[in-house]
Amino acid sequence: MIAVGERINGMFLDVKKAVQASDPAPVIDLAHKQTEAGAKYLDINVGTAAADQKAAMRWLVETTQGACKTPIALDSQKLSVIKAGLEVYDGVRDLMINSVSGDDDKLDKYMPLAVEHNAALVCLTMNKDGIPQNVETRVEIAMNIVSKAMEHGMDLTKVFIDPIVLPVTCDQKQPKFLCDVISQIKILSDPAPSTIVGLSNISQGTSQRHLINRIALVMLQAYGLDAAIIDVLDTEIMDAAITADMLLDRMIYSDSYLKAARM
Amino acid sequence: MIAVGERINGMFLDVKKAVQASDPAPVIDLAHKQTEAGAKYLDINVGTAAADQKAAMRWLVETTQGACKTPIALDSQKLSVIKAGLEVYDGVRDLMINSVSGDDDKLDKYMPLAVEHNAALVCLTMNKDGIPQNVETRVEIAMNIVSKAMEHGMDLTKVFIDPIVLPVTCDQKQPKFLCDVISQIKILSDPAPSTIVGLSNISQGTSQRHLINRIALVMLQAYGLDAAIIDVLDTEIMDAAITADMLLDRMIYSDSYLKAARM
Repeated sequence: MIAVGERINGMFLDVKKAVQASDPAPVIDLAHKQTEAGAKYLDINVGTAAADQKAAMRWLVETTQGACKTPIALDSQKLSVIKAGLEVYDGVRDLMINSVSGDDDKLDKYMPLAVEHNAALVCLTMNKDGIPQNVETRVEIAMNIVSKAMEHGMDLTKVFIDPIVLPVTCDQKQPKFLCDVISQIKILSDPAPSTIVGLSNISQGTSQRHLINRIALVMLQAYGLDAAIIDVLDTEIMDAAITADMLLDRMIYSDSYLKAARM
Repeated sequence: MIAVGERINGMFLDVKKAVQASDPAPVIDLAHKQTEAGAKYLDINVGTAAADQKAAMRWLVETTQGACKTPIALDSQKLSVIKAGLEVYDGVRDLMINSVSGDDDKLDKYMPLAVEHNAALVCLTMNKDGIPQNVETRVEIAMNIVSKAMEHGMDLTKVFIDPIVLPVTCDQKQPKFLCDVISQIKILSDPAPSTIVGLSNISQGTSQRHLINRIALVMLQAYGLDAAIIDVLDTEIMDAAITADMLLDRMIYSDSYLKAARM
């Protein structure tokens, strides 16, 4: 599984303070620690750290790129903030753009940008009508994303469809729905698009956040999930994800498989 | 998930010594502890504890029944040992018979016995030709088990089909094959037969037995597994199994769901 490290996010107090003080040390530290923990991408999200989100994104991208060679994911709902990150992106490491909704006009803006920068693109199964909570509508939107990606000549494995995780406390049918959406997305095309989730929303408001996150992740992996935005510094969720990969024959077993997967 | 507690087994030294010394204390202790941990059945297996397996089975069943009201599973490859357990079975608590292979002549012996005692029956997807390692042959044997169960008038939910867990170190394709077998078994009939695994074999010879066991269990649950013979005293595997049940909408979420599931 492609683990995307979620910690360089202005919603966390340490990152917020670092942005506000222009102090690179905490960001550099998070870049190093998440890389060592096995992150394949470092998500970079300004969050609520600064009024000038574009300047903050530029600073976070430059600071992270200075710290390590790990691929990065530019994370914002605003195209202008994504573009600010692209201005300083080094063009060498792998890149992910996170995220765009499944509306045609949005896809027509983001997909050429992804192609231009050879970036992976996270596409949400939601549109102007909102977030569908059933399987069918999510798969319909995913189909539209795939057809748009073909139109724009995107490598489908670089299209990361996010079926949108909702809190289990709101609707306990959602986790199984997500499993079904993922397995259906994986047969939409050949090669199949990739799948990704922002996981932690599932345990919102529960008493067992870490446990619920890792068990949900394993279930989704069993149905074909390729990537997840998670707290890679949580050793237990990483061990769970790596073990699921091994049991699904996505990596070879050795007595040191947990360590090998983090290298 | 129906957790079947595996610890009253003569392969474990404490139980072996208890059987040999006719000392009920360790067996009573295991009956209590496994019940408190959430076991829905207590598996009783003489293992290598005694030359007279029938006498040992009778003693273990009587001792366990004296300790608690928890349902029991009579576990032996020998029909004579199962019958010895049935002689002293109290006829009140729920009963499981574990196990019979998928051969017609065997099923014709065990199924009437299960019907007579209103017992659940574990049926293995193996026959005289051996243990199939592919999906198709396992499902074929499962189909035969279902048709035999109908012939004998068994309640299909009391037929627990075991697709046979092989060590991941032998063949890493097996865990996903098991997922597929289980999902296909669940659509063989309406009502569907139940499914069960003896889990711990999957991690045989690995460096991470507990971790691999619990991640494999969650994957199988996501595909419809109903029951597993496990070490219920391993808090982490029980927490994982209960959380998977909750995420699969098989039990209602509350802040104390982990505790509630064990009652």
